[in-house]
Amino acid sequence: MSLFRDKFKKVAEKNKSLLCIGLDPDPEKMPLNDIILFNNLIIEATQDIICSYKPNLGFYEQFGSDGLKILEATLKSIPKEIPVIGDAKMGDIGSTSKAYAHAMFDIWGFDAITFNPYLGKDSLDPFLAYKDKELFILCRTSNPGAKYFQDLLVINAANEKRPLYQYIALKAEEWNEEDNIGLVVGASSTHELKKVRPICPTMLFLIPGVGTQGGDLQGAVKSGVDNQGRGIIINVARDILYASKDKKRFVEASRARAIEFRDEINDSLVSLGKPW
Amino acid sequence: MSLFRDKFKKVAEKNKSLLCIGLDPDPEKMPLNDIILFNNLIIEATQDIICSYKPNLGFYEQFGSDGLKILEATLKSIPKEIPVIGDAKMGDIGSTSKAYAHAMFDIWGFDAITFNPYLGKDSLDPFLAYKDKELFILCRTSNPGAKYFQDLLVINAANEKRPLYQYIALKAEEWNEEDNIGLVVGASSTHELKKVRPICPTMLFLIPGVGTQGGDLQGAVKSGVDNQGRGIIINVARDILYASKDKKRFVEASRARAIEFRDEINDSLVSLGKPW
Repeated sequence: MSLFRDKFKKVAEKNKSLLCIGLDPDPEKMPLNDIILFNNLIIEATQDIICSYKPNLGFYEQFGSDGLKILEATLKSIPKEIPVIGDAKMGDIGSTSKAYAHAMFDIWGFDAITFNPYLGKDSLDPFLAYKDKELFILCRTSNPGAKYFQDLLVINAANEKRPLYQYIALKAEEWNEEDNIGLVVGASSTHELKKVRPICPTMLFLIPGVGTQGGDLQGAVKSGVDNQGRGIIINVARDILYASKDKKRFVEASRARAIEFRDEINDSLVSLGKPW
Repeated sequence: MSLFRDKFKKVAEKNKSLLCIGLDPDPEKMPLNDIILFNNLIIEATQDIICSYKPNLGFYEQFGSDGLKILEATLKSIPKEIPVIGDAKMGDIGSTSKAYAHAMFDIWGFDAITFNPYLGKDSLDPFLAYKDKELFILCRTSNPGAKYFQDLLVINAANEKRPLYQYIALKAEEWNEEDNIGLVVGASSTHELKKVRPICPTMLFLIPGVGTQGGDLQGAVKSGVDNQGRGIIINVARDILYASKDKKRFVEASRARAIEFRDEINDSLVSLGKPW
């Protein structure tokens, strides 16, 4: 079990939560101009409700080098015991992947990252060599465009047909020798979650697309959990971060919204007979 | 025609070159410790031999925030008329892609970027909205792992079978309304280049994998060119950058190696009856 998985389990059990908050700063929607302060307040107000945080690097890179200082300060304000997923959906040839893995794990110190598998096994290897870290491979994403390539029927050497995202899940399961691979499967695709879970019965699924993106939360929980009623991380960003534009009460509003999500997930676990 | 294409055409014709140098700093292989100085010397010594430069962001991100200062200084030292391709192989859901596009084009000022299409059309759109910029979509990459997913046979709605990379080329052609899409097709796959050129007859192909990666340069040129004997950018990084470890003569060695590559490409153009 990766160190990420260990941290995740401890925090999830302590907070009775499978909710992850996506720390994706969007100046147009934020009640404060100071992004570091905004992130710090959100983290302070939600750290007892979540199982992890997930900053998406695009939302920091859009501010140039200032953005990286904001990310650095944000990471510092997250308590050490809470696992952090660096969302950059990277993937490059072996020698370059090695540089990226060093950047994400040694320099930034992320506990896990998201990964685009299009370049195949040798693009993953430098990341998988970090056995304590977790690699969430994009399987079926939550956006409308996911259908274009991810749902294409592919034929393998044995002439079996299945959608590409399921083939990727199969390969991920095969490559998971160090037990440090997870999958990204969007909540907007509960049908796909149902199909992927039997292929990867014990993997951790990172599930985005709930909230603003419109995914079905209860359906995602029921379709996504492993046979222990766990094994999922539900990510919500905008719907929690921008619960209110009111400078005086947005922290409270974000906390309340996070509690709602956590509780709705937990209600689904109860209805599955798998309470905390 | 994108502004990128315009810049590319002018510089390529002036320098009689389809060679791009990948500015990928690797401290283990470099003859100098000062990366900014190293890059500046390489740029100074090769700017009359190339048609573009391509920094891969992973090689800068591995140095943390210092790396971004190095990238910034490197970009400043490239003459304005030479187009620069930012290689980050990104791809995310629409709202995040918008942030990335802003980062790459408005903040960094790249003329073109590389893009991973796994998330589909809405992940491209925020980039395509920059009509002056060029988007090189990963089609068939140059690494050994490319075979895992890119070569899979996929079936479309009309029950036609073709490898995934060819299907992606078809979609790229369909989505190229603003004439600002190009493709990445590795030199290690001349067979694939031959297949993709008829699908996208007028697109610009960015071709990595020559040199250290072992791709067949003459084969790549012959299989990749459009019917004008142009339409390709051959990228070489390590083989030129690290031509010598000798502090006193590496600049000269890199320049000589770049000239060799440019001339070998041009010899192929001559043999095709398409000299400059």
